[in-house]
Amino acid sequence: MTDRTRFSINQMTVKQLTLPELADVCVQLDVTQVGLWREPVQAYGVEAAAELMRDAGLTVTTLCRGGFFTAIDPKERAAALADNRRAIEEAATLGTDTLVLVSGGLPPGSKDLRAARQRIADALAALAPYAAERGVRLAIEPLHPMYAADRCVVSTLAQALDLAERFPAHQVGVAVDTYHIWWDDQAPAQIARAGASGRIHTFQLADWITPLPEGVLNGRGQLGDGAIDMREWRGYVEAAGYTGPIEVELFNEELWARDGREVLAETVERFLGAFPAGPR
Amino acid sequence: MTDRTRFSINQMTVKQLTLPELADVCVQLDVTQVGLWREPVQAYGVEAAAELMRDAGLTVTTLCRGGFFTAIDPKERAAALADNRRAIEEAATLGTDTLVLVSGGLPPGSKDLRAARQRIADALAALAPYAAERGVRLAIEPLHPMYAADRCVVSTLAQALDLAERFPAHQVGVAVDTYHIWWDDQAPAQIARAGASGRIHTFQLADWITPLPEGVLNGRGQLGDGAIDMREWRGYVEAAGYTGPIEVELFNEELWARDGREVLAETVERFLGAFPAGPR
Repeated sequence: MTDRTRFSINQMTVKQLTLPELADVCVQLDVTQVGLWREPVQAYGVEAAAELMRDAGLTVTTLCRGGFFTAIDPKERAAALADNRRAIEEAATLGTDTLVLVSGGLPPGSKDLRAARQRIADALAALAPYAAERGVRLAIEPLHPMYAADRCVVSTLAQALDLAERFPAHQVGVAVDTYHIWWDDQAPAQIARAGASGRIHTFQLADWITPLPEGVLNGRGQLGDGAIDMREWRGYVEAAGYTGPIEVELFNEELWARDGREVLAETVERFLGAFPAGPR
Repeated sequence: MTDRTRFSINQMTVKQLTLPELADVCVQLDVTQVGLWREPVQAYGVEAAAELMRDAGLTVTTLCRGGFFTAIDPKERAAALADNRRAIEEAATLGTDTLVLVSGGLPPGSKDLRAARQRIADALAALAPYAAERGVRLAIEPLHPMYAADRCVVSTLAQALDLAERFPAHQVGVAVDTYHIWWDDQAPAQIARAGASGRIHTFQLADWITPLPEGVLNGRGQLGDGAIDMREWRGYVEAAGYTGPIEVELFNEELWARDGREVLAETVERFLGAFPAGPR
């Protein structure tokens, strides 16, 4: 596969585009793969979205996102499991084999990271076989430690793998996203660990730019604008045996304020430019 | 020592107070220890500040901060070393044995964290004996990974100890600050490692609150307002043999907008309240 055919655009990067616009622009730009998000897919209709993607010749590489497993209240936990079962069904309908999980932060009033991580393990046990029966793998995404309190208590690849390895690799793996792990000197070894058991279920790129915006959610940099050596990280992932799609997922207010087609064209260019001679 | 006598107020928590006001309020509130910052001390005069602290019966627990060792340009590196020698002399004049180091981020255009960490090691080799001759220990402070690009490429206690252990413990140790390490499931073991070689040179507290403000610098929470279990972390540090001062260092715009005396009184109360029955 060429770099161009490995590229996948995560819908969030160009969320200003409607689903039909996204499909249309992808066709225009020779982009053949997309990562989708549940909310816009649900708003459009899951079956209709699947058909739209198929008709445009687009492969859905991931669905974002399930997760939010850390509630203590039994009713909230049951609701989260039910919602994740729906997410698994949506992924299956869209034809993607990978549901990305953002595991959830500390519940209000709790300071117990360890217990929260245990509740994630419990939820995975309830969901992983259900997903596998539908041909869907769960990909635990470690989020940057700055999200540990309010979004995801799984902060490192090592923690994500500790959770994933309780299950067969075809059921649970990890999402490797440069934005979340670039600072971690243990991450290269953990990528090798993930690859050795076939658990790299998706590889996503975003660059690290500063200053971070308030709330630190929507300041991910366009490739090449920040501190991350994309070639180095692609090298680790490929040395670990990963040959799948490479998704670019940027949350960025400035990109969202621009023309979506232009942003997608720029993202393709930046992606190709980031790997002038392939991975090193 | 009682909890009250172990308490130290880091000057930054109440930076709205002048040095004489700080000394005065400390005396009023029975606070006997302070951590100082170079800029206000320099503005007041280092000798004069030392005298002011002595006259108020205050012990200076740390001086913040040296560091910023990651520049590539030889002139910038020489300037950084010269400035750190001045910081060491200032610490000695103030009578504190501990200079806290914020090691520096990636230089402009660089994406090489590993090389930046090596330059920190080189700077430490140049400074550690100089500091030890003046009775000053260097305390490498790992900063939260959200600062890795622009402030400190040392993101974990493990990395800080990897650097510190190249030197004798009386020359180089680490600063353990809850705000920076609370998310890290490896940190308890690293605290034990630091304690075993006598390298916990300071222990600082701040709570983690969200949402983070733009730039993520000045959103540290008052003790008890956030996600961190202070008792748990104090327990790790004391199990590792640490019996020294416990400094509260909050960077917080809301606290700075209030009356400094009131904030310091509240901080003492929160500190005592955080450890109702001592460490667990």
